[in-house]
Amino acid sequence: MAETKIDNGVNVDALLAAREALKSAPDAAKFTWRAACKWQNGTHSKSTIQGFHGLGQEQKHKTEFSFEADHPEIFASEDLGATRVEIVLVGLASCLTAGVAAVAQNRGIQLRSVEAKLEGAMDIQGILGIDSDVRNGFDDIKVTFKIDADASKKDIEALVAQSQKRSAVYDCITNPTNVTVEVA
Amino acid sequence: MAETKIDNGVNVDALLAAREALKSAPDAAKFTWRAACKWQNGTHSKSTIQGFHGLGQEQKHKTEFSFEADHPEIFASEDLGATRVEIVLVGLASCLTAGVAAVAQNRGIQLRSVEAKLEGAMDIQGILGIDSDVRNGFDDIKVTFKIDADASKKDIEALVAQSQKRSAVYDCITNPTNVTVEVA
Repeated sequence: MAETKIDNGVNVDALLAAREALKSAPDAAKFTWRAACKWQNGTHSKSTIQGFHGLGQEQKHKTEFSFEADHPEIFASEDLGATRVEIVLVGLASCLTAGVAAVAQNRGIQLRSVEAKLEGAMDIQGILGIDSDVRNGFDDIKVTFKIDADASKKDIEALVAQSQKRSAVYDCITNPTNVTVEVA
Repeated sequence: MAETKIDNGVNVDALLAAREALKSAPDAAKFTWRAACKWQNGTHSKSTIQGFHGLGQEQKHKTEFSFEADHPEIFASEDLGATRVEIVLVGLASCLTAGVAAVAQNRGIQLRSVEAKLEGAMDIQGILGIDSDVRNGFDDIKVTFKIDADASKKDIEALVAQSQKRSAVYDCITNPTNVTVEVA
């Protein structure tokens, strides 16, 4: 029987080589990610992403990525972009999804499709300042994966668990991070 | 001297009316924000946002917003979208920026321009699994605002401080949130 080549499009060999290389050059593992945001009008803003620092030098995405954010019409805004909390859900969804693909590649599991649906509960009494006991952010977030792959339910659940374990955004949301805000 | 009308494009009257209305209907303040994510190939995924729940019923953005995420070429990926952690920075930047506009409107301060630059430090030894003492997410995030407005430096700093105090994404990043992940 011919061996079937597993290909989820993730270059795991390159990632494992990078891991080996960075073990002896930990300074190169220090990254700085950046975003710039420009207020447009009202609650509408436009953010862009292109440059970052890593592997000891300045780096650049091939293209500039841009993101519009706004409030919906029910908040008396123009709805010209997603809300900021929805953008955070996108970050979490796509981080866990990429993790599933990378872990599946490393474990020799062929994926056919991966879909994630996220729901974040939020009581807006917090951001409106109605009740100071209500937090501004999400009360909780629920992620539901639907994965079609050449693997048992148990192996698929293990993929998802490992993706959580290595996810930068999952860590960022479930654990506190220090944020300093300054006016230039 | 004619009174100059302050207009940052934020309908503060509508927001204050909503605050009053929700005080007597706290169930309507319970929102659910959603995102859906579909794996494309490798570390590339596409997320979409449209429906949400709030004010006691299903709601919908005027249009569907879509977001591509990927890893850069230095991680042996195709760089077809921003990284997930950069997307989180976009959420934070645009949340604080909208807050500045809303608070300025409420305080009668005319804004001319608001720009935010964000830097998030991350040691990728975490996500690569090199050192389990290194966290996966950001070590810290620095936000620098440049604001041109009809106000003193002190009043501008107070605007930014109030925006932080009411920001959903600032709360989400600086405080822990419970995330449940399931496989359907």
